[in-house]
Amino acid sequence: MSKTVWSEEPSEILRVDSVFQLADVDPTATPGITASKKSGTAMLRKNRRTLGKLQGKLFADSTVGGTASLLIVLQGMDSSGKGGIVKHALAGMNASGVVVHGFAAPTDEEKRHGFLWRVRKRLPEPGMVSVFDRSHYEDVLAARVQNLADPKTIEGRYGRINTFEQTAIDNGIVVIKVMLQISEKQQKKRLVARLHRNSKLWKYNPSDVDDRERWRALQEAYQIALERTSTNHAPWYVIPADHKWYARLAVQQIVITKLREMELDWPRPEYDLKKERKRVAGA
Amino acid sequence: MSKTVWSEEPSEILRVDSVFQLADVDPTATPGITASKKSGTAMLRKNRRTLGKLQGKLFADSTVGGTASLLIVLQGMDSSGKGGIVKHALAGMNASGVVVHGFAAPTDEEKRHGFLWRVRKRLPEPGMVSVFDRSHYEDVLAARVQNLADPKTIEGRYGRINTFEQTAIDNGIVVIKVMLQISEKQQKKRLVARLHRNSKLWKYNPSDVDDRERWRALQEAYQIALERTSTNHAPWYVIPADHKWYARLAVQQIVITKLREMELDWPRPEYDLKKERKRVAGA
Repeated sequence: MSKTVWSEEPSEILRVDSVFQLADVDPTATPGITASKKSGTAMLRKNRRTLGKLQGKLFADSTVGGTASLLIVLQGMDSSGKGGIVKHALAGMNASGVVVHGFAAPTDEEKRHGFLWRVRKRLPEPGMVSVFDRSHYEDVLAARVQNLADPKTIEGRYGRINTFEQTAIDNGIVVIKVMLQISEKQQKKRLVARLHRNSKLWKYNPSDVDDRERWRALQEAYQIALERTSTNHAPWYVIPADHKWYARLAVQQIVITKLREMELDWPRPEYDLKKERKRVAGA
Repeated sequence: MSKTVWSEEPSEILRVDSVFQLADVDPTATPGITASKKSGTAMLRKNRRTLGKLQGKLFADSTVGGTASLLIVLQGMDSSGKGGIVKHALAGMNASGVVVHGFAAPTDEEKRHGFLWRVRKRLPEPGMVSVFDRSHYEDVLAARVQNLADPKTIEGRYGRINTFEQTAIDNGIVVIKVMLQISEKQQKKRLVARLHRNSKLWKYNPSDVDDRERWRALQEAYQIALERTSTNHAPWYVIPADHKWYARLAVQQIVITKLREMELDWPRPEYDLKKERKRVAGA
């Protein structure tokens, strides 16, 4: 059995504070933990049960009137591993309680509404976990870099995002915002690999390379977004993601920590336990 | 490594045909396979990768205009293990491509519409897998036993269900209908266990015992529903479910078989592969 443990809480050391600089993040680092890919992956697997139990409590709580729920926002450059987070870091959760929403470029209908319209509809119901694979943040990231809206409109969006998230939190939603940070070198490696595996070719889009040419601009847009929207109530976590095992383990640990902080317990039965035990035994 | 294999395809031997009698099913049996709980569980785990790959192809296919999708309907007495199917038999699927819908007693709004209204809205989008934990079949099961609708209305529903499912299939939806069959004895054991574990108490409802008193009536309602709605296009599979490992393995295998029959392959790229490889290498 692996003895891998965190020397520091990822929810502390990876949190974006007021002096945070994205350019200072080393995407190849593994802060807070010394582990091999093998022991890290073993730990990831081992934690599934813990995660499943915590999510079970969240769900059970909603059946007795609890309003708590969880929203996980995933952002990051193309091929940074957002899909792998869902598949590996959150694997212990029961699919009945998890809904994953991918947000691609907005449809014509979505464009006719405010940029928060389509995400508001996807906020989690009580007891549920919603995962946003890309999110309303694209409206200050891609939108900024590709000039999809005028600068003044984009400027106004940061404040609107903060208000939107505050309202969500007031309604019982715990918000975890994660940015997976990979290096240009690692991205290249992954895109090349994508173009050499039959099962991955469909994931490639020639525009991925265009985005690559906008790398610096997009990183700057991220820096601004992180500065303006990493609030006390909904902080950002930037995860070094060149090592997939590390990124998955760190996100898993942050989710576990946040669920634990909710201090949920299995609901007490509203029926007469002794009586029901007797009834079942006799039925 | 376990060498457990099916001697007969569960999609053949567990399929409800015209002479099927629910009363003849032995819930403790494990037809088609000789395995221990341990080797069965190992096989279940081993198949996850296969299942994940097949589901990946289904999803990928939809990104190039494919319309195929998958609907899995789960029915069975209380505590028959429907939740465990989602958690264990379908675990290899990527959560991004799976949506689980639980259908409890209809809400007031739902009651104002036809009984198929709420399920129609939950049919899978192209590329997706929808799982119904209970379904429109409750409207000919619970409804029949508890007299929730007049007999004539219920009589008319079987035909409407068949038409509804045929239309779904015409739209590219592959439909797998599963009934998990447990014994009264096994159910009692599970309900007693539920009342002795803190983490399970919330799942118990005193009405579970009332259902138990209606056991025979409910089994009869199942027999009628199976007879009338196990069609060529959407057959029922009745799974002996006293052994959880068997039920999970059988459902997993049926899903794998049905996905294989769709003969999906990874989409061919619509871009110039050679050119893009060069572009990425140079970017």
